[in-house]
Order: sequence, then structure tokens, then C-alpha cells
Amino acid sequence: MNHKIATLLTDFGTRDYFVAAMKGALLSVAPNAVIVDVTHDIPPHDIHAGAWTLANSYHSFPPGTVHVGVVDPGVGSARRAIAVRAGDHIFVGPDNGLFTRIYECDARIEVVELTNTKFFRNDVSHTFHGRDVFAPVAGALLNGVKLSDLGEELSDYVRLALPCVERADDGALTARVIHVDHFGNLITNLTRVDLPHDRDDKHLTFEIGGRRIAGVRETFSDGVSNELFVVWGSAGNLEIVAARASAARLLGVERGALLTILKAT
Amino acid sequence: MNHKIATLLTDFGTRDYFVAAMKGALLSVAPNAVIVDVTHDIPPHDIHAGAWTLANSYHSFPPGTVHVGVVDPGVGSARRAIAVRAGDHIFVGPDNGLFTRIYECDARIEVVELTNTKFFRNDVSHTFHGRDVFAPVAGALLNGVKLSDLGEELSDYVRLALPCVERADDGALTARVIHVDHFGNLITNLTRVDLPHDRDDKHLTFEIGGRRIAGVRETFSDGVSNELFVVWGSAGNLEIVAARASAARLLGVERGALLTILKAT
Amino acid sequence: MNHKIATLLTDFGTRDYFVAAMKGALLSVAPNAVIVDVTHDIPPHDIHAGAWTLANSYHSFPPGTVHVGVVDPGVGSARRAIAVRAGDHIFVGPDNGLFTRIYECDARIEVVELTNTKFFRNDVSHTFHGRDVFAPVAGALLNGVKLSDLGEELSDYVRLALPCVERADDGALTARVIHVDHFGNLITNLTRVDLPHDRDDKHLTFEIGGRRIAGVRETFSDGVSNELFVVWGSAGNLEIVAARASAARLLGVERGALLTILKAT
Repeated sequence: MNHKIATLLTDFGTRDYFVAAMKGALLSVAPNAVIVDVTHDIPPHDIHAGAWTLANSYHSFPPGTVHVGVVDPGVGSARRAIAVRAGDHIFVGPDNGLFTRIYECDARIEVVELTNTKFFRNDVSHTFHGRDVFAPVAGALLNGVKLSDLGEELSDYVRLALPCVERADDGALTARVIHVDHFGNLITNLTRVDLPHDRDDKHLTFEIGGRRIAGVRETFSDGVSNELFVVWGSAGNLEIVAARASAARLLGVERGALLTILKAT
Repeated sequence: MNHKIATLLTDFGTRDYFVAAMKGALLSVAPNAVIVDVTHDIPPHDIHAGAWTLANSYHSFPPGTVHVGVVDPGVGSARRAIAVRAGDHIFVGPDNGLFTRIYECDARIEVVELTNTKFFRNDVSHTFHGRDVFAPVAGALLNGVKLSDLGEELSDYVRLALPCVERADDGALTARVIHVDHFGNLITNLTRVDLPHDRDDKHLTFEIGGRRIAGVRETFSDGVSNELFVVWGSAGNLEIVAARASAARLLGVERGALLTILKAT
Repeated sequence: MNHKIATLLTDFGTRDYFVAAMKGALLSVAPNAVIVDVTHDIPPHDIHAGAWTLANSYHSFPPGTVHVGVVDPGVGSARRAIAVRAGDHIFVGPDNGLFTRIYECDARIEVVELTNTKFFRNDVSHTFHGRDVFAPVAGALLNGVKLSDLGEELSDYVRLALPCVERADDGALTARVIHVDHFGNLITNLTRVDLPHDRDDKHLTFEIGGRRIAGVRETFSDGVSNELFVVWGSAGNLEIVAARASAARLLGVERGALLTILKAT
């Protein structure tokens, strides 16, 4: 018998009882669950950051994994609770856009509103649906409960507007930093599909934070210390990085910063 | 076969080998244990904070769970090591008051001193009883060893003095902030039992940090941005919160701050 | 059936998708693996810190545990990927010295270069071998794959130069702080074998950060508040500590600081 896996992603931090209470609630329903933390360090209430991290972790897990995401500033309000099937993976959390990038990853999307209180904790608080709704529902799904048992299908689920790569008349592209990782690498929304005619990306020039950076390299170790350069990162996105240093600190830029992509002249 | 669950709560932080060494020691005794971290970010040596967090996490877990708590500034001294049965849950750790709130939660308390060295690691250090005493004893308990096999029953176990809600002659109540959570919510020691005649808590007024706050709301999303208000939190305690912001930062208060509860005039 | 255990030690931090992606990759290969985090808070690119922490955690785990270590500034470069058998434990990671202290702990060392791509992820990135190489190989090892199936044996694996205790002509010893832990304890490279003729260590005097400290005590609780003193720590090394305070902060010293050991006069 293989175990069933649940992943957890929240903005709860790790110093309170919140995460453990969710795990206890899940294990109370599904005692053989294997629970994996994605992260609990999403900045408080930052749905965009949660959406990014979720979209880059879920596909590493085996088919059948249930992913619980709780970045939920509207907990207890009229915002709906949902479960989402996307291909072989299932997601549980608030209907506030946290799953936007999942909706884009897979064409086979099924979303239900969680209304069947039979699968909730007996006493649902107004402030902690992670413990009282999402964790027990995830446990039920691991136990084999079907999406259709949880509530009615929804089609008007919430999607966030994601920043797009913009193309100017002269062919220059403008991208944005959408995530700054633990190492200070600046991850942008530019992917290879944005550069259909520039397969030879060694000839591109990038502008960010008032600095010009030339050419794409293979890997983090290709630069000399503190040198800024560009790689295609493990998420498939263009990243501005620095050899053994934080590009964010060297450039003084944060999420949202603009990156301009110029053709080498 | 269901797995047996052990939870861990410490002030060890997460950057050293301490937590992993405890887990390795536990798994060496009970290879099928499911280990859940409550938190390792209790402020160093802060027994009160550990007691609060433990009391709010354990009851989410299934009956039979063994909870290991190590906030232990007196490690290696004459302080005793204990195991506690409280209802369907078992606790293992130092006898320094860390389990004070557990003693209050359940009338069926049984405490034994850990003296049977047969269940300890072969070589017990003076400085790391988490690895050498508490984790292996927890593993033994998961394996079915009885409390009475671990040592003699104790009745003079250590209890911390917890802050009480004070009632003035005019009926005003004074409570205290006992925990500041990851979101900056201020959790007080006031519970509904302190307000037996004020079921309509919408008419109460609260004073804290020089500010007056009127009425209790349902949930975190009921305020406009940065507005301070009051909810009954998921631990059952009154919390001063701010919509999508840190009440602690807005008010400039910390644990220990006084909260006065006035009747609306 | 006992579960097989894998431990993870990285410098990835806990706020990105990196650690979860490794766990998903490992569980995709070995669905029944029990995964234990050692730490993900090794300072970025700090191979020495990773080597220290790994060497102090692995031996607490049962025989057969597979330990994955990823502190890997050279990812994607010509640095080799290796698996190491040391006694009953197996280690997987980059060949950059991260396992130096393991090579010293056990005389029975076998090192192979990971070249058999059959055990890698289908699509190996240049920047994330934790997910694409090390985690799947660890899963294969838990599934019973032999070291010799992974690649050819190596003998010229990389070893870091570790700081030694120096002995002056007058018998005085100079040691170094090699780790500062979560509590601010200063862990040095001095062990009991450096003091063969000083079994009565109560008569030693220590100098660090311009301060003299006399005598070795038994445990952390032996001092009065903020007092500096010395203990033999749980890793077997001499530690400079402070009662319920951070010795690092009190002394203003960091890793690399010198400790002089004098005989009492």
C-alpha cells in the first residue's frame, strides 16, 4: 500500500500552532497520509507569491497528490472554499486566485465549491479554515472521497491578473521580476516561448535596475564573484543572478522591477 | 496498521542539527513513527511561550499521539524529566512548567518521573536530553511501553503561575496579551467564560496601548485596511487584530500588555 | 516493513519551492520513503557549515539511512556528483567537500561518481540538481539500488582543509570557533583527544574575545544569568556558552574566532 501525499503551503509562518493544528486535523481524518510542507513563509496575505510557489512545486509530486494552499485574508467572509482537479493533481483552498497559475497549467480543470459540511471539522471557526475546512477535506480526498461529493461544480472561480511580457513596436520586450528567491535570484515572467525568434539567446542584452547585462549563461557557477548574469532557471523562467551573491542586493531591486530585453546591436 | 504520531515542540531553531538528531533518535526506537513538527521557534528558554503553543496544538491530533516538548534551560541540572498522560494524549519533557496548560485542560492527569534509564540513549549527555532522553522515551511510548514502566508517579510536578483576568469593583476586567502570533495578532487570556453576563459582546469596549476599540466582529476580513478590531480567535481567546496588518506593530505593544474591557456606556 | 529514511540538508531556505520539489522528486521514485529535514538554513554556499551540521546529525539515524546534502555553488559546472557509503550510512550530493567530515568519521569509505543517468530525472536542469539528480538517486538507493550501479568508484574525491588545533612550544593550545548555534553557543574544534594529559579540565583557563574564562562545567544551567563558561557540548566539542544568554553576543565573536587554552598557573 502506497501512502497518499498531501502538501501544505501557507502564510502561517512556523512559530505558532497553526501548521501543526492543520496537520493534526488532516491526520485525524487520514492517519496514513504523508504530509509534505511546501512552505509556510509566503508573505502574509500575498496571494500572488503563494500562486507562484504552488505552481512550481506541485508537478514534482506523484499523481494523486492533494495540495492544500492557505493564503486566505478573506477567511470567514463570503469568499468560497474550493477543491480543484487539474490533471492528476488536486488542490484545496480558498477561491481567491491562489490557484490561478494552476488553471493555466492544465486544460482539464474541474472546480467544486466546498459546501458539504459533512467533511468539515465539527466546529468550524470563523478564523481558521485551514484547520477546520481545508485540512479535513484534504484528508477526505486522500481517503478516496470524490470531488463531486464535496459540492457543486463552479465555473466562475477567481483568477488573478498576472503580469504579461510586453512587446514594443521596435521588438523590445519588457518583462517583470515576479519572485525573489532565498539566494536573491531575480525570477522574471519571461520564458522561452516569449523569444520564438531568438534561439541564440547569447546575443541578447538585458537592462534592469539601471544596469546592462549581456548574454545568457548555462548555470550559476559561470560567473566570477559578484558578477551579474542571466540564466534560464529551474522553473523555466529567465533569472537575473549573481555568482555566489544576491542579485537583488547588488541591483537594489524587488519584485515588480522591470526587465528590458534588447537585441544586441 | 495505523502509524503512531509524535509531535515535537522545541526552542532549538531550525538551523542546527538538534531537531534532526531528536528525530533520528526517535526513529531509531520507533521506525514507523510519523513525526510532526509543532514549532522549533519558541523563543530560547521561554517556557511560557512553549506552554501556550503546546496547549493549542495537541488537541488537533488523534488520540494516542505522543507530544515531546523541549524548552529546557535547566537541562542537566536537578530538574526532573517527566511523562504526562492527560486524557488520550501523552507528553514527554522537562518538569519545569512547560505542561502547565495541559494540566489545566484535562482532569485525568498522570505524571511519572523518567528514571528508568533502560529507555534512554546509551550515553546520556549533560546538555542534550532532547536527543538522549525525551526522543527515545517518546519512541518507547509509541511502541507501547506503559507510563508506569518509565518511573514512579509524581504529584508535586511544577506548574507555572499563569496570568489571570482581573475584575475591578466597578466590573471592569483587565486581561493581558499572552501571545503575539506570526500575523501580529494580539492574543489575550480573556475567554468567553470571563464574560458570563455579556453574551452580547458587540457592546463591549476595549482599551489597549492607549487606543479604544469598540465591539467584537466575526472574522479577520471584517475591517478596512489597517483598522483595529477584536475577534474571538481559533484558540477560543479574545484577539486584537488589524485588517491585513499587524496589530502589534500598529499599537506598539508586546506580550504582557494590558487590555481593559469596559461596558459600553 | 520498516520505512526507509532519507534526510535532507541544504542551503535552500524554506520560503521557495526548492525543498518541496526535491521531496516530490524523491517520493516519486520511493513512495514509502520517510523524509526528515536536517536543516535548509545552511548559509548560502557555505560548504563548511553544511559539513559540520551533516557530521553531527547523521549518526543519530538508523543504519541504512540515506543522507542528501545540497550546498552546491558549483551546480551545473564540471564538479562531480557523488554517492558515499560510510559504514551503515549513505550520502548523496556534490563532490565539493561537503562530506569531508564524513570521510573522517568512518574508515570504510566508498565513493562513486553519479554517471548513470538512468537514475536521474528525465530532464536534468543546469541549476537544480537537488531535484533532478540527488533526490531521485536517493530514492533509487532507498529502493535497493546498489552504489556500484550508480557509476564508477572514485578515489580523488574533494576534501576540505579543516582548521586544526595548534600547539605552541609552551604547551598552550589554540583552537577555533567552527560553529555558532541557535542559542549563541560557540562551538570550537577542541575535543577531549586534544587534551590527553589534562583530564582534570577544571584547572584549565580559556581566552577568547579578550576575556578569560576558568574551568569546565557540566551543563548549561551551571551559571548565573549572563555568566560565560565552558562545557563539553553534545557534539563532543568544547563550547563557550552563557547562562540563558548568547555567548556570541556577549563576546562579540563569530565563527573563526580564536580560543586559547592555558593551564592554570
